[in-house]
Amino acid sequence: MSSASSGADTAWVDEAIKHLSTLVDSDLPGWSRIGFSEQDAAARDWIHQQMLELGLDVRTDPVGNVIGRLEGQDPNAPDIVIGSHSDTVPGGGRFDGIVGVVGALEVVRVLQRSNIRLRHGLRVVDFSNEEGNPQGIKLVGSRAVAGTLGPEALAASDEEGRTLAALMASGGRSPQEVGSARWNRRDIAAYLELHIEQGPRLEAAGASIGVVTRICGISTFVLDVHGRRDHAGTTPMSTRADALCCAADAVLAVQRIAASSDDGVGTVGAVTTTSPLTNTISEEARVTGEFRSADETDLEELLQTFAGTLPALDARHGTRTDLAWKMDPPAIMDEALSDLVAEAARRAGHDALRLYSGATHDSVEMSAMAPSAMIFVPSVGGRSHCPEEWTDLADIGRGIDVLTQAVRLRDDLP
Amino acid sequence: MSSASSGADTAWVDEAIKHLSTLVDSDLPGWSRIGFSEQDAAARDWIHQQMLELGLDVRTDPVGNVIGRLEGQDPNAPDIVIGSHSDTVPGGGRFDGIVGVVGALEVVRVLQRSNIRLRHGLRVVDFSNEEGNPQGIKLVGSRAVAGTLGPEALAASDEEGRTLAALMASGGRSPQEVGSARWNRRDIAAYLELHIEQGPRLEAAGASIGVVTRICGISTFVLDVHGRRDHAGTTPMSTRADALCCAADAVLAVQRIAASSDDGVGTVGAVTTTSPLTNTISEEARVTGEFRSADETDLEELLQTFAGTLPALDARHGTRTDLAWKMDPPAIMDEALSDLVAEAARRAGHDALRLYSGATHDSVEMSAMAPSAMIFVPSVGGRSHCPEEWTDLADIGRGIDVLTQAVRLRDDLP
Repeated sequence: MSSASSGADTAWVDEAIKHLSTLVDSDLPGWSRIGFSEQDAAARDWIHQQMLELGLDVRTDPVGNVIGRLEGQDPNAPDIVIGSHSDTVPGGGRFDGIVGVVGALEVVRVLQRSNIRLRHGLRVVDFSNEEGNPQGIKLVGSRAVAGTLGPEALAASDEEGRTLAALMASGGRSPQEVGSARWNRRDIAAYLELHIEQGPRLEAAGASIGVVTRICGISTFVLDVHGRRDHAGTTPMSTRADALCCAADAVLAVQRIAASSDDGVGTVGAVTTTSPLTNTISEEARVTGEFRSADETDLEELLQTFAGTLPALDARHGTRTDLAWKMDPPAIMDEALSDLVAEAARRAGHDALRLYSGATHDSVEMSAMAPSAMIFVPSVGGRSHCPEEWTDLADIGRGIDVLTQAVRLRDDLP
Repeated sequence: MSSASSGADTAWVDEAIKHLSTLVDSDLPGWSRIGFSEQDAAARDWIHQQMLELGLDVRTDPVGNVIGRLEGQDPNAPDIVIGSHSDTVPGGGRFDGIVGVVGALEVVRVLQRSNIRLRHGLRVVDFSNEEGNPQGIKLVGSRAVAGTLGPEALAASDEEGRTLAALMASGGRSPQEVGSARWNRRDIAAYLELHIEQGPRLEAAGASIGVVTRICGISTFVLDVHGRRDHAGTTPMSTRADALCCAADAVLAVQRIAASSDDGVGTVGAVTTTSPLTNTISEEARVTGEFRSADETDLEELLQTFAGTLPALDARHGTRTDLAWKMDPPAIMDEALSDLVAEAARRAGHDALRLYSGATHDSVEMSAMAPSAMIFVPSVGGRSHCPEEWTDLADIGRGIDVLTQAVRLRDDLP
């Protein structure tokens, strides 16, 4: 199967992606491999095994990160880290995260086929539970590595009161040992992540390779609407205080505000009410949503504009609203390392398009540990987080070639 | 406690209502006594016992209706039926239905105190589960009596797949014997129900007694919205097909259409989505709601106007909607019997306001069995289906006096 070519072995890559797409929960739509599920454990065991077969020094850490290390020539040089995540959203696709994990393994295979020994150690990682959980915590594995998965995150609970720590333990991991998953930043020279774009811009530009300048910040919000519970048959429309109607107006406000911004997006996940029967007017409704923008000022402005519309909605519906939010600012990728990736793309024969990422990635956490950069390959139709998610194998191969080249260029630096 | 007066003994009525308000589910807000719950059974046992103590011939039928009969002088005369229901909505109040059950018992007590023996038999009934259940079936007891609780209704299931028959059995009732709960319409001369208004009109008019001309029809609908599942961070606002945004627009359309009608109301109970996380655009959303009107043509028009707005909503959001609905037409109360009730009110010293009922009642089912009429007493602030629901004891007493008088006037007819 291996070849002497310095390019990626796309047949092996294709087979690996196909194999992982069999390790999914058949009770859920699409290709679902949810963090800390049985299928997630099976996939991580398989990645662990692949790393062993490549001769890496492998361990799966207490939170489920699978980490394989290829020794470098200089024992004092910090490691270059490459990887992504193998978990998916429920109802997700076969490429989000997976391309970066399989691609990182193939970089090792290319180096070995080409008899190239790096000066730096090369650390290959499959981060645990990047996509998050019902407890609302994303980037679980990379947060553990960066030391930002604290007791508050482990104690976050889902609607049934189950904590993230309990979820992790149910998946065979050891949340009480999360501290030992932390990496020392002096051991890390750089982080490079190959990922599908999950958006339409590379395809629209006819480009094969993207270099990510920044990753969107996210303002997640919870809007609680307080109305008045009344009989739905006997209460005139003019005297109602229907919390669900105000919530509906808020959903459309999110859409309108985001649509009139430059690059921002806004999405409501769910609208819930405490009285779902049609014969009772809703007393309480809750809207959970988010805004995203690559620009921190714009992100602030989206949320403030939304907050500014609420008094008018309350006046219209006779309700009272409470808005709570949490802001994760945009993450900026390292400029020098991104230039190095663009140079790697040029050497591999591709023009790199600079773009920002609307999706969040493990590189957000890694960028606080070490200079980080991301390589994007196109998503057909811009579709992602859905069964239709697709990236052509040829594009995946080009992405791996650029990643290999970038690792080699970075290896030439101290 | 009893007195020689021909008027209602409001002290006893007050005590009975207060006693029933202790038989509630303390895990739920307000005064919750849900059909087929433990508390529902306890309340029905208590009503059964009260009827026994009044010397009635009592039985609790297979669906939970508690029926007590006071023998009349003429064994060939059909029964006059009085009553209502003792179950509540979750988070409901202390008066909806209960006033009519306690009031009917008090009518028997008044007749006995006054040594009045009717020519007709008097049937006092506490109908089972008027308020409905998660299976979506209302008026369960009166449907069983009217013979309209068929196999389809018994097989209706909630979100977890539990049928109405299973719910009834869990409450100690015998759904397999529902056929034996049916009454023979030749045995029934008339049905008279005392109930709180649950709306603001009596209070606004300064009236103590209402006579119901008709009970609103209800069009219950389910709107399914089909959008496209996409990544919430990477999909531009302009290319989305967000099912939840279209659903929100539909909620506001229901409100707008009902508000611009003459007397109609429209309410959405719930908006649900298959992807409640904020990082995924909703592929599917569902809106469950209803329109009500006392006029069948207006009710048709409300629904048709709503259906007519959907293509514009689909065009705006890039979605596809499917609307399904079920129409329960308005029920018309018997004119001659309603005139008799108005005359009874006059004799008791009250002007009766004619009005329609926005809420549904067991009299809808009973009106298909026998001439039926309803007496309303005021609801403070028009509030109902909420813990704040309140009717002054003096008004309840007036309602019982009118009901007693109406029974006696009806007894004078064949």
